[in-house]
Amino acid sequence: MNTADHSALRSFAGREALLVEQAMRGDLDEALQGCDPLLAEVIDYALFGGGKRIRPLLVILAARLCGAADNNLYGLAAAFEYLHVATLIHDDVIDNAQARRGREAVGRRYGMAVAILAGDWLHARSLYLVGRFAGTEGLAVFCRSTTGMVDGEFLQLRHVADCALTEEDYFAIILRKTALLISSSCEIGAIFAGAAPEERRALADYGSKLGTAFQVIDDLLDYQGDAGNTGKQSGNDFLEGKLTLPLLRALARAEAPERAGITAFFAGDRLDRSSLDRVRQFIERHGGFDSARQTAVQLVAEADATLAPFAGQGEGASLTMLHALAGYVLARNK
Amino acid sequence: MNTADHSALRSFAGREALLVEQAMRGDLDEALQGCDPLLAEVIDYALFGGGKRIRPLLVILAARLCGAADNNLYGLAAAFEYLHVATLIHDDVIDNAQARRGREAVGRRYGMAVAILAGDWLHARSLYLVGRFAGTEGLAVFCRSTTGMVDGEFLQLRHVADCALTEEDYFAIILRKTALLISSSCEIGAIFAGAAPEERRALADYGSKLGTAFQVIDDLLDYQGDAGNTGKQSGNDFLEGKLTLPLLRALARAEAPERAGITAFFAGDRLDRSSLDRVRQFIERHGGFDSARQTAVQLVAEADATLAPFAGQGEGASLTMLHALAGYVLARNK
Repeated sequence: MNTADHSALRSFAGREALLVEQAMRGDLDEALQGCDPLLAEVIDYALFGGGKRIRPLLVILAARLCGAADNNLYGLAAAFEYLHVATLIHDDVIDNAQARRGREAVGRRYGMAVAILAGDWLHARSLYLVGRFAGTEGLAVFCRSTTGMVDGEFLQLRHVADCALTEEDYFAIILRKTALLISSSCEIGAIFAGAAPEERRALADYGSKLGTAFQVIDDLLDYQGDAGNTGKQSGNDFLEGKLTLPLLRALARAEAPERAGITAFFAGDRLDRSSLDRVRQFIERHGGFDSARQTAVQLVAEADATLAPFAGQGEGASLTMLHALAGYVLARNK
Repeated sequence: MNTADHSALRSFAGREALLVEQAMRGDLDEALQGCDPLLAEVIDYALFGGGKRIRPLLVILAARLCGAADNNLYGLAAAFEYLHVATLIHDDVIDNAQARRGREAVGRRYGMAVAILAGDWLHARSLYLVGRFAGTEGLAVFCRSTTGMVDGEFLQLRHVADCALTEEDYFAIILRKTALLISSSCEIGAIFAGAAPEERRALADYGSKLGTAFQVIDDLLDYQGDAGNTGKQSGNDFLEGKLTLPLLRALARAEAPERAGITAFFAGDRLDRSSLDRVRQFIERHGGFDSARQTAVQLVAEADATLAPFAGQGEGASLTMLHALAGYVLARNK
């Protein structure tokens, strides 16, 4: 992606994010009316602490690409941010995470009980909005992605510290954990617009590729990112016993003795910061970071290709932005 | 309620519960296909460990009373058991509860992470089923009750160990915590049947009164119940700092010095089993148990009265069973 695209995307995404936030505030004013003040405070804290609003943006772009008018579109888009934040809150409770987006995690700040309940509230409200604006067909797609996300978490738990994890397992996990919701953002945008089945499928496919690439980059940033940019300490995946693509690629390339030295960290429960430095060097030495990045580049190219049938169709700006978003996934550093 | 009614209700409810369980198994076969085996195991453990299936039964009775055919009705009814169990799982994590229905609580058995995720899965699936079978109108009612339940938990957290809790606060909490979902079971049954607005309102009102009475009795059983029947130790509410109706009534009747002795337990964090015995005697001495039971009797009478417009209408057995259920709420000992 060239710099001009990047800058156009950034200003476009910034404007749309403001409109999404406006829609969220309007919806919360209605939904939280008369409720407990702490509930309102926690929901506000969780939703308005930054966040790139990528999932709402995808809903908006996919819907417009398929010819939808904007009426109610932002309400539908808000649902995807609610659900995304609901899962972050519950994940942070499960991982006992301290920070998120450079601030205290909800569970750390307000306690576990409040965090579980606030996640449940956002979950329920997101489903309500999807049903209201995308009907039962949209709801079915949405629920398939939310139940799939839970399944992905179970798969991940099953494979904690499991050095026999295959690439196939890895991609099955990240498809469920991340790509399903991103895919359903695109597909439900298309449903909202009354798109033809092949358009729905193409956008679902775009989202699935994009979401997978997004998570591969996320897993790279977990090793290589700068806490000042990402808002969280690096190395969490390793410390939690999660094997991700860079390490899998390096393990596949290393000779047996060296490989045994690395897997011993997982088997012997030596998942600490001093081991992390050795693992990082090991991945680097075997080209694991480069190899994982190449896979992300390939996935983004495939995502781009799924958009080919839309060329010259509908409103041009949306197509440009969807292409630019695919490029952004590779360029992001947080 | 006389014994003949009670026995007829019991055998009717038992037959219907089997059909609901069949519908749940059919739905899970579809929904859990290809998923992680532990997820399937936990969902099975959580859903099929007893439970009276009262909420599904209410959906079925309300729908039939308004003339619905049975096609898809059990799938809709299953959603209410899913949601109910989802909230129990999360509540037990929050309260660090050890037992539920005479077995280990899900969080105790499988750990907190699994419990949070399994609750999320059931939550998502319940909303999907409501949307599928009761449309977006049913979904709106359902989500109002689920977000309301979270609000009720926040209200309850706010008033932990709060001896200034009023009866109004108490009823606001139990309306949200318990009565909203029971009310929406009845109302959504009516929506499924395409009932007239006044029928919907009457059934929502019936459920709201019934649910409130149900919780008042639950709060009585927490002091007076036999663990052999209820499947959980008694006295949990007091030990967790929750003031419920029997205690509120006794506090309102006691003289200031005696009242101060009781409230000192809450202020001084002396919520233990020896204090519990003293509090139980205090409530008994001031007629708090009798007074709370009288309120439940009154609520059940009001619930019964809301059914008057349905006399002679539709299918007679459903009306008889709804009246019998109201009576059962007072008679239950678990």
